[in-house]
Amino acid sequence: MANMFPDPLEGQDSGILRDLNEPLVDHTEGQLFLNDAFKIIMEEVLCKGTDVNQKVCEWKEPEELALLLDLELRETGEPSHRLLQRVKDVAKYSIKTSHPRFLNQLFTGVDYHSLAGRFLTEALNTNLYTYEVAPVFVLMETEVLRGLREMIGWTEGDGLFCPGGSISNMYAMNLARYQRFPEVKSKGLCGLPRLNIFTSSESHYSVKKAAAFLGIGTDNVIIVQVDERGRMIPDDLDEKIKLAQSQGAVPFFVSCTSGTTVRGAFDPLDRIADVCEKHKLWMHIDAAWGGSVLFSKQHSHLMKGVHRANSVAWNPHKMLTAGLQCSALLLQDTTNLLKKCHSANATYLFQQDKFYDVNLDVGDKSVQCSRKVDCLKLWLMWKAVGSIGFTERVDKAFSHARYLVEQMKKREGFHLLHEPEFVNVCFWFVPPSMRGKEGDADYQDRLAKVAPVIKERMIKQGTMMVGYQPLGNKVNFFRMVVFSPQLSQKDMDFFIDEIERLGIDL
Amino acid sequence: MANMFPDPLEGQDSGILRDLNEPLVDHTEGQLFLNDAFKIIMEEVLCKGTDVNQKVCEWKEPEELALLLDLELRETGEPSHRLLQRVKDVAKYSIKTSHPRFLNQLFTGVDYHSLAGRFLTEALNTNLYTYEVAPVFVLMETEVLRGLREMIGWTEGDGLFCPGGSISNMYAMNLARYQRFPEVKSKGLCGLPRLNIFTSSESHYSVKKAAAFLGIGTDNVIIVQVDERGRMIPDDLDEKIKLAQSQGAVPFFVSCTSGTTVRGAFDPLDRIADVCEKHKLWMHIDAAWGGSVLFSKQHSHLMKGVHRANSVAWNPHKMLTAGLQCSALLLQDTTNLLKKCHSANATYLFQQDKFYDVNLDVGDKSVQCSRKVDCLKLWLMWKAVGSIGFTERVDKAFSHARYLVEQMKKREGFHLLHEPEFVNVCFWFVPPSMRGKEGDADYQDRLAKVAPVIKERMIKQGTMMVGYQPLGNKVNFFRMVVFSPQLSQKDMDFFIDEIERLGIDL
Repeated sequence: MANMFPDPLEGQDSGILRDLNEPLVDHTEGQLFLNDAFKIIMEEVLCKGTDVNQKVCEWKEPEELALLLDLELRETGEPSHRLLQRVKDVAKYSIKTSHPRFLNQLFTGVDYHSLAGRFLTEALNTNLYTYEVAPVFVLMETEVLRGLREMIGWTEGDGLFCPGGSISNMYAMNLARYQRFPEVKSKGLCGLPRLNIFTSSESHYSVKKAAAFLGIGTDNVIIVQVDERGRMIPDDLDEKIKLAQSQGAVPFFVSCTSGTTVRGAFDPLDRIADVCEKHKLWMHIDAAWGGSVLFSKQHSHLMKGVHRANSVAWNPHKMLTAGLQCSALLLQDTTNLLKKCHSANATYLFQQDKFYDVNLDVGDKSVQCSRKVDCLKLWLMWKAVGSIGFTERVDKAFSHARYLVEQMKKREGFHLLHEPEFVNVCFWFVPPSMRGKEGDADYQDRLAKVAPVIKERMIKQGTMMVGYQPLGNKVNFFRMVVFSPQLSQKDMDFFIDEIERLGIDL
Repeated sequence: MANMFPDPLEGQDSGILRDLNEPLVDHTEGQLFLNDAFKIIMEEVLCKGTDVNQKVCEWKEPEELALLLDLELRETGEPSHRLLQRVKDVAKYSIKTSHPRFLNQLFTGVDYHSLAGRFLTEALNTNLYTYEVAPVFVLMETEVLRGLREMIGWTEGDGLFCPGGSISNMYAMNLARYQRFPEVKSKGLCGLPRLNIFTSSESHYSVKKAAAFLGIGTDNVIIVQVDERGRMIPDDLDEKIKLAQSQGAVPFFVSCTSGTTVRGAFDPLDRIADVCEKHKLWMHIDAAWGGSVLFSKQHSHLMKGVHRANSVAWNPHKMLTAGLQCSALLLQDTTNLLKKCHSANATYLFQQDKFYDVNLDVGDKSVQCSRKVDCLKLWLMWKAVGSIGFTERVDKAFSHARYLVEQMKKREGFHLLHEPEFVNVCFWFVPPSMRGKEGDADYQDRLAKVAPVIKERMIKQGTMMVGYQPLGNKVNFFRMVVFSPQLSQKDMDFFIDEIERLGIDL
């Protein structure tokens, strides 16, 4: 490797340069290294990392981990064998998110076609802004967005892949604001009336983050009540809109949720659409988590009315296992709102005297300049399994969740929050020592401490990872999300046994 | 492959599910596929794609390319051999951004250590928000940000990797606004005075995009004049600030540029810092492109005064070849401003009753929820070549630019805009038919048409890719950026010969 053992003199006087005719990258040695690294990735991340006989995590205290990793960045480089050991170490101490026992977040599992698409994306190192530099991906993104819009029921429209659902939601909010007050782009909010946003108390925190970032303010996010299952109450939305208007605010944006983060609730879209139409508000659906039900004939009714929205955020990196990140913002708009709202017409990138149709230069639709290619992985996976492959994944996730719920009902100590509507199975584990003591004054306080202890034990033993959280007046409960394509029924049995094993003595 | 040839019945009745005990992913077949795909990537992207005897691009008209790629997404999946052909096709028709003759953007080239880090990142599929789920990367990001801050001269501070420089710049703007008016987070801009931002006429378009997105408005971006080389004029900045104040606006943010996109100009930071201090304004530096000069003892003077800034955006995916995307926002702040400004305290993710120090859960510093790991590739590359490896790359780029300039001076028909300050070599090519006719009335009009034609020819022949653009009253000129670690002197000779060959008859 040309620069593996640099001449120490060079550090002292960078004016002493090697021959200008010697490139700084040796392809042969580089490719050898990449080949070796690939083998390690295969072995450590994809073989061991998905093997139920191996740990899902190798817990280390931060101080110890820092020492093990030797993170410090130095003046001089290191030889290949040392670097390959580092690749191994990073894999070893990282969480195996593709492991069947990783249920900690709304992403998990591995799809090898998607992963091949991701490796190809990285190797091609392309920026998705002009046809000139990303011909394949400009066309491919258009087709993938079209395919996703088709699931919504839109034959036309627009869209963009964004770096995560939070930013997709932000885009929707900004578009709604621009549509209502086009002058906001040049003049800003100064001089405009106070704008109001409506979302449910169980919606994702990104709605508030977006309101803060866009200069609207979190106080102007009006919280709409939810029913006992966590679904937005349309009548309350209607009331809150009228109240806001009576207080001089201008409602402009409703963010509903299809698949809330914690309970997996689906807001009643059709009834919310009625309210939005009545008040002429932009209807956005944060379907980052739940959007994939659209692939299921059996379950897509959860999103009945989706086609009436103005915008939908949908993250195939979640339920479809497309890999982080893959977040689509989908729009019904056909008036080029995305470009009008975000364009800056930079002449160094979007020259108008190019020899091809410059409408193919999609980059000015985005607030990013550099934008990663997020469509290839989804496209290749879609080609591999077809829409019916996605249908199967979604339906199987529902079946697993159903099975898990039925098993929990048969066991003492597992208390469901309620029957799940989606694949989020939310429950308390009540250890034997607390059973039958629901009336005790300290019961809730004690129950709140159970999940954190079980969580600590499972992480330190590395047997599984599952999330817990409080919600409103409900103390800490577990949320199991069972949608990895790697899962089988016996994994469900393991999950229940394991929670019991870890918490039996509490 | 389990779902390669799905039973057509399943499409019609998704209720018919396979045995719940059969996972939907077959690891053995999946890994076989990934292995084959890796070989294709190696051959097509990394071997052929970096070979000067191969084309840098394979131009196709959009309609033809769409047909060749068969982009359509269908109900049923495809067999492996077909999918592998698709991997090959995507590679074939994509631009080879790692090719030594790709000079079209401010990213180019390949670093194999970085690429290994990127493959590992993709395989690990981690989200950088909590220590629980990303222990290695929480610590690693901290160290890499520390390493970059050290180059600025800051022993303390904060930071974050963002999805591109535009978003890094947005963050800086939002932080500055929050520091000045903390109530903006909850109350929004409504009721606040008009805020003003200052940046030069040659700064990146993301400053205006950010102002629009954050609700400040593009009209409130006050354009500061530049000198003949494209550097912000501090006296004009001072004047414009005073003028804005006299008109009732509140100046709060100055965005200077280290390495402008087109001309590679470096704003005089020390003198701008004086102005910012005088008026108590947040000083941000968009060093997305130029930041890497900090690794060079010889050239870091271009950023003299950088340590006086409040924030710096620096993209190692540009000059350091870290791969898209790798964009650091660096802050001098030690008051936890990033978290205060952006936190939403979501209880499902950032539980306070965890068994480890929850300050390690960095996710609430970000407006994203899902955030990709962008530190590993830079860390591994840094470990591989050391700081002096980066020094060498930067110094070599300057040497190549110098050589290129000297060669151009020797050739008739190459007219430099001016001596470059950085590695952006900006020039007009004047074809023989136009030489000596500078006085003609249509000279500028004719000159404006030269670069687009040469560009079209080079793309259609696939021999090289280099950008052109107009700037102010300067008609279309080429911008060559010569920093790929794959370049050698003979490539510079080729670039000049090739422009001449393509434009000699115009």
